Amino acid sequence: MTDSSEGPVPADALLVLGCPEVPVQQALALYLAYRLHYQGTRVRAAGNPAVLSLLKVSDPEQRYLPEMQVLEKALEDIIEKRQGWELCIVFAHSDAGISYAATMRHLLPSSRLVVIIFGKDPEALVNTADLACETVVEKAVHNPVPLKRKIDGVFGWAASRT
Amino acid sequence: MTDSSEGPVPADALLVLGCPEVPVQQALALYLAYRLHYQGTRVRAAGNPAVLSLLKVSDPEQRYLPEMQVLEKALEDIIEKRQGWELCIVFAHSDAGISYAATMRHLLPSSRLVVIIFGKDPEALVNTADLACETVVEKAVHNPVPLKRKIDGVFGWAASRT
Repeated sequence: MTDSSEGPVPADALLVLGCPEVPVQQALALYLAYRLHYQGTRVRAAGNPAVLSLLKVSDPEQRYLPEMQVLEKALEDIIEKRQGWELCIVFAHSDAGISYAATMRHLLPSSRLVVIIFGKDPEALVNTADLACETVVEKAVHNPVPLKRKIDGVFGWAASRT
Repeated sequence: MTDSSEGPVPADALLVLGCPEVPVQQALALYLAYRLHYQGTRVRAAGNPAVLSLLKVSDPEQRYLPEMQVLEKALEDIIEKRQGWELCIVFAHSDAGISYAATMRHLLPSSRLVVIIFGKDPEALVNTADLACETVVEKAVHNPVPLKRKIDGVFGWAASRT
């Protein structure tokens, strides 16, 4: 695992979201979608129905995140070769999130994989994530700003106003 | 307390947010700001710095919520008569939220006050909210859709896609 790198702009990116109990996740998913779209990357978010509902209600004009898909369907599309992703970003604030990251590493072996490890005790999760991927690690539950700054660093984005 | 009414479109509205631990709050604040703005109401959100950061990161172009203010400053502006609000919407998922609602009732005696009571056990909070206001009450932590439907009903908005 390494902590930062910059590559060429990917054509497409899948954001994989965990359960919605940590408030920073939905804010950072919208932010990532905005920044990726702005640089020319097509973006889709995948997660469970609750987290997708939160994103839909948060972005009523579908301005930041026009594409969403239930996670099982997104996995099925990759397994059946209907869809690949040059970049995959997994939000992990629990063991389930780390399992999603391992699944994505297996299904997308040549894609750039960035795992955002956050929540109350991210260091405990880092130790379970023995994957070939980049990681962004920050204790973050209610305040998204420090994690956002690290994400900006990983993707080579200039800092914005927050 | 009554559960629904429709009035003329207010010129301005203040959204008062509680602590950010309940994920539906930030989604519904963005949605309310969008719907109010769309009908011609100027909207500002007030809350603590963490909740304002979440909203800023969630809405990177400030498209839905261009005006935000720390709650203490918003209260000061009302107390010192620099700013009034025709509509005030308070999110309450804790005793603190009910206290904010009581404060707003006192400071804005002739404004329309709508209190959104949500979280894991909203009925317990309803019993503490003995105020002259409208209420929207729904158990809601991760799934914003039932509460969003009730909000649409209170403001006379047609249902949207979520």
